[in-house]
Amino acid sequence: MASSLSLANHDASLQNKIDMSNARKRTTVDVAVMRDFVYNGHNEWLRKEKIIEVLSKDPVFSKEGRDFMTRTEKYNRGLRMINRVSELENSLGWTKEESRLAMHSLDEALPISLHLTAFEPVFLAQASPSLLSTYAPLAAKLGIFGCYLQTELGHGSNVSALETTATYIPETREFEIHSPTLTSSKWWIGALGKTATHGVVQAKLLLPDKKSNLKDMGPHLFFMQLRSLETHKLMPGIIAGDIGPKAFAGFAATDNGFARFDHVRISKENMLSKFAQVSDKGEYIKPPHAKISYGGMLYIRSGMVTSAGWLIARAATISIRYATVRRQGNKGPDGLEFQVITYPSLYSRLMPILARAYVYIEMGRALSRSFNSMSARLATGDTSLLAELHATTSGLKVLCTTASVADAESARRSMGGHGYSVFSGIGRAYADLVPSVTFEGENFVLDQQAARAALKAYRTIFASGKAVTSFDPASLPPSTSYLRLLITSDSQPPLLTSASWLDAETLIVLLEWRAAALVRDFTTSAASEKTDMWNVDPTIYQRVSKAATEAFVAGQVREMFKTVDANNGLGAKEKQVLKKLYLLFLLTTIETSLSDFLAFGLLRMPDFISSGVTDPTRSLRRAISALCKEILPEAIGLTDALGLSDWELDSALAPYDGAAYQALWDRAQTEPLNQEEIPNAYEESIKPMLQRGQKLAKVGAKL
Amino acid sequence: MASSLSLANHDASLQNKIDMSNARKRTTVDVAVMRDFVYNGHNEWLRKEKIIEVLSKDPVFSKEGRDFMTRTEKYNRGLRMINRVSELENSLGWTKEESRLAMHSLDEALPISLHLTAFEPVFLAQASPSLLSTYAPLAAKLGIFGCYLQTELGHGSNVSALETTATYIPETREFEIHSPTLTSSKWWIGALGKTATHGVVQAKLLLPDKKSNLKDMGPHLFFMQLRSLETHKLMPGIIAGDIGPKAFAGFAATDNGFARFDHVRISKENMLSKFAQVSDKGEYIKPPHAKISYGGMLYIRSGMVTSAGWLIARAATISIRYATVRRQGNKGPDGLEFQVITYPSLYSRLMPILARAYVYIEMGRALSRSFNSMSARLATGDTSLLAELHATTSGLKVLCTTASVADAESARRSMGGHGYSVFSGIGRAYADLVPSVTFEGENFVLDQQAARAALKAYRTIFASGKAVTSFDPASLPPSTSYLRLLITSDSQPPLLTSASWLDAETLIVLLEWRAAALVRDFTTSAASEKTDMWNVDPTIYQRVSKAATEAFVAGQVREMFKTVDANNGLGAKEKQVLKKLYLLFLLTTIETSLSDFLAFGLLRMPDFISSGVTDPTRSLRRAISALCKEILPEAIGLTDALGLSDWELDSALAPYDGAAYQALWDRAQTEPLNQEEIPNAYEESIKPMLQRGQKLAKVGAKL
Repeated sequence: MASSLSLANHDASLQNKIDMSNARKRTTVDVAVMRDFVYNGHNEWLRKEKIIEVLSKDPVFSKEGRDFMTRTEKYNRGLRMINRVSELENSLGWTKEESRLAMHSLDEALPISLHLTAFEPVFLAQASPSLLSTYAPLAAKLGIFGCYLQTELGHGSNVSALETTATYIPETREFEIHSPTLTSSKWWIGALGKTATHGVVQAKLLLPDKKSNLKDMGPHLFFMQLRSLETHKLMPGIIAGDIGPKAFAGFAATDNGFARFDHVRISKENMLSKFAQVSDKGEYIKPPHAKISYGGMLYIRSGMVTSAGWLIARAATISIRYATVRRQGNKGPDGLEFQVITYPSLYSRLMPILARAYVYIEMGRALSRSFNSMSARLATGDTSLLAELHATTSGLKVLCTTASVADAESARRSMGGHGYSVFSGIGRAYADLVPSVTFEGENFVLDQQAARAALKAYRTIFASGKAVTSFDPASLPPSTSYLRLLITSDSQPPLLTSASWLDAETLIVLLEWRAAALVRDFTTSAASEKTDMWNVDPTIYQRVSKAATEAFVAGQVREMFKTVDANNGLGAKEKQVLKKLYLLFLLTTIETSLSDFLAFGLLRMPDFISSGVTDPTRSLRRAISALCKEILPEAIGLTDALGLSDWELDSALAPYDGAAYQALWDRAQTEPLNQEEIPNAYEESIKPMLQRGQKLAKVGAKL
Repeated sequence: MASSLSLANHDASLQNKIDMSNARKRTTVDVAVMRDFVYNGHNEWLRKEKIIEVLSKDPVFSKEGRDFMTRTEKYNRGLRMINRVSELENSLGWTKEESRLAMHSLDEALPISLHLTAFEPVFLAQASPSLLSTYAPLAAKLGIFGCYLQTELGHGSNVSALETTATYIPETREFEIHSPTLTSSKWWIGALGKTATHGVVQAKLLLPDKKSNLKDMGPHLFFMQLRSLETHKLMPGIIAGDIGPKAFAGFAATDNGFARFDHVRISKENMLSKFAQVSDKGEYIKPPHAKISYGGMLYIRSGMVTSAGWLIARAATISIRYATVRRQGNKGPDGLEFQVITYPSLYSRLMPILARAYVYIEMGRALSRSFNSMSARLATGDTSLLAELHATTSGLKVLCTTASVADAESARRSMGGHGYSVFSGIGRAYADLVPSVTFEGENFVLDQQAARAALKAYRTIFASGKAVTSFDPASLPPSTSYLRLLITSDSQPPLLTSASWLDAETLIVLLEWRAAALVRDFTTSAASEKTDMWNVDPTIYQRVSKAATEAFVAGQVREMFKTVDANNGLGAKEKQVLKKLYLLFLLTTIETSLSDFLAFGLLRMPDFISSGVTDPTRSLRRAISALCKEILPEAIGLTDALGLSDWELDSALAPYDGAAYQALWDRAQTEPLNQEEIPNAYEESIKPMLQRGQKLAKVGAKL
């Protein structure tokens, strides 16, 4: 077939390139300056660029053909890549952080993530000094490969119901790890299926009392060897394997696994005992804080904001590039159809996504800083920052995972038919990120926690029904700073005019008022009296959680405006455009919850109402549309500034040079079905069917 | 490994079965009676049951291992199934309709769909009698396999910009079909990649005028042979192949293809000339109605409501069954955790999905009847029903595809972590249905058309700014019946109390008022003056389209209440439960557009406001939650009544008997990675990595 392809006419690709090049020329922001801002400094960008250069040139990391691979092939390729990064770490002298950056840049959900973000941090934070001295260096150099065994076939969100047991045997100073039932099988554990040699197992600690009855001390963590370091065979008494493919072909290279333990003995030292401990006799030594082991979970959750930001960045880059070169619809004076990005139906969808990418990446960074402060204090036993971070990350995890998954799908759909091709590149990213809405805290459960935290904060202040006059609003942490609005009893939500939609501080205060109004209203509902919210209508706590979290995020955006103003590296133009992005983010945040703002009377627009306008939401929508149009000429520059290379994006619809149609054509030629003109199905199925049909049609004709 | 599995404890599965059995006992509706209703009569149900029995017992249709297949294997399996159904059609004497039902029951997006729903209907409706006499019997018996070539690499929604040409050559009475550019390549054409022998090609008809200049007559349809019936090789001058995998691994068994034509000559008879024709000399003979060829598109769109209904039915059945046996969270007096379906966060999500399944299936049937009436008239040249069906299906296609895709994903997420396993069965269905939001009319474009139709209807009545007094509201077609509310100038939206939420007619009128208010408001906006809406903010026409379509749907639901009342086959209990489902459907329809109702002052609740309630939406939400709880005990019966067998559902999480955990465990054991204890990746990647890591850790220790 290849020979006949000379028929291809390259005009369209030429136009693609012209369109992309013109879009770049229209951009007025300095892309390099903006990129340095996105990457938090020029050196960070250079470091990343250098790593990407190494990876993109190495054949081990080639993405060719990966869309045609079986899961086993994808798994094998994943392990090859992990091994190669580990080699490069040593040969090129990468720091641990650089090697992590490399692993995360591979555009594939890999088992190493579980080692790096679940196993190692928990192990380092909670293992005893003696365990650490032996295994920490091995974990750091991948001399062992770890996983984190929490979820069971029958148990997820409710950790206290886990069935796996760890029974202490004082006689031998051992724990016996056991899976008593089918439903106690560990399940979904990333890297457990075929890769991991070791794991941290969450199990119910059972201690014998004086009468030798076993007492359940709740879930604790145990370090276990799962596979032989000589043969990779499972250790005696352990059954384990892969749980099978995931929906949407997501996480194909990760061996999420199951495991069952049949009375497996491990040494007492294998309990992660930095906090809770068991004496040789089997007495329980309490941890200083009941929730001290939450650190690992918070680490994973706070990292999810950054991942969400980068998924959105990827979706924005691909969809905006494609919409720039795709022409469809009416013809302009040049006789060409318009670029689809010039249509409001496209830019009104894509500019808010771009804005969200910028905000989330920045917010992820701030959250990492908060996590590090909390973590440093936690290491010294100081748990004072834990509650605040827990409240913040619960709501944020819901907000960011929901938004990023929705944005990725919205961006994919904006590409019309071609967006459904695997070569568009967004589907893959979506498939890998979509489980984030159900793992690491199911979003409904987290919404309950976030709402509860808001309620608690409210009640602390308004214990007697009205504000304690001596209460200092400045003492409120960022997560509930919006409650200050309720303390002065005469304060009112702002009055709005159409100019208000261009004033960031007004929008931020509006978002804070909405949180204050919803939380206050929530306290008057019967639901707030329940000690848990399992039996509460979810719309109640979801609205509260969303409102409180978006008020927190609005506060973060307030800080971003200040940071931009204070940044000497940015020029006036870049500052102006960044502020437009932040403003758009705030406006669309309000738009998606309009029913709340209307229901609580927060769109106070006396001028509009007196002028006889029926629909009070129209001026907001008009402001969003106008702002999107203003940002539009900068869109390609702003996506370039996200710094994602063609190798990273791996999208036929979004090559840097714009030549999407040629790229899509070229990719299609590599499809395995095209390697032979006559498919195998012909002899087996098609031919007999056609021949029978022809015979029957003839018989029919004769009748 | 298999030997050690004796460790498995079956208690949990036993509990699964007990939970399912108890849920069945709680159901008070007669499942068989309800099922006959869903299937539109006992005979229809029997016919389907008989077909499913044949299919589910035939090894060709076994679903074992399909989740592990490559795309090529899935394609081959698909063709085997098509061939087998065609064999069964003949050997068992199935009618054409029964064989279609069989094809559609295979739970796989197959190339035959394009033959049955795109190629054949268009061919039958528009081919000349001579073409029909030769090819219609062959198409009916699969002696030829057809596809429908419209979309091009560079052109989708805007059919008038298609680049493929059909140039008439009077000398030889031939058309020359040609693809002048890369972007004119036909693309996405289902069954074209490797299967189809023939196709209907949409191409720009070029006719020579007297000076032999070519005149563009716009897109027309041509019947072409693509592959040899002897060898299956492509006909001379044609390049074709498969366009590659789709996102989310969807449509894997369908060979969506590309094709390019290099000056391919076909006989003049091959033009589909029932309506537009070309004389031997090359003169154009106009069709009687410009849009007469829209029939095929409307057929596909009206079928999409039914498909959406059955996708939702599948999602509802799987998620409700799993939520019935999954126990998680707080413990009840029996010491067991509660079934998750008892939590509002689950049943408030799942009962509305179940209600939507019932409404859409019923509505799809009504729409098919409308299509058949329209089609019968169209065949006689009467186009009077075309505009109404076009207006209705545009908005409905958007509404139903968006809702069904969202419901499938919402149901999948309701299953928590396990919902992300491919074995859950919902991901597959989602992956195959999600392109429906971008194909057969991109949803934004259709929203524009629906909004325009609403506008046109409004202006016809209110030409001079106020209603023509002589206008008879009864003359309004169902699609714009809501406009009657504006004709009597003193009519007002209903006043609401909490009892209103239980009154279907009030809810229907409320939905109609919202459409009337939005359409009226739309006419006052500048956007309504534009001849096309490409340059209009999408939120404007999307809101209008949604409002108008939901008013139409509300009208359909009004008819459903009447149908249920008149149905003698249903008992009082079934009638009552069906009405609750319809009521819930109406309530949630309002809930999802609350911002519209609030912005236009349609939630007129004087009692609430005077009693000092802050949030006027609370009573609606409370009514929804209460109604969901009322329907809950019937949920398993209502999903059973949807009549989907275990073979059809193919879900490890939703076996009829409830034993989800055992099924999930069993499926995982069949994963190819589990067939050997040591993965191939061990020698290649894992071992070198571990050994290097151990060495480096040792070196580190010595330093």
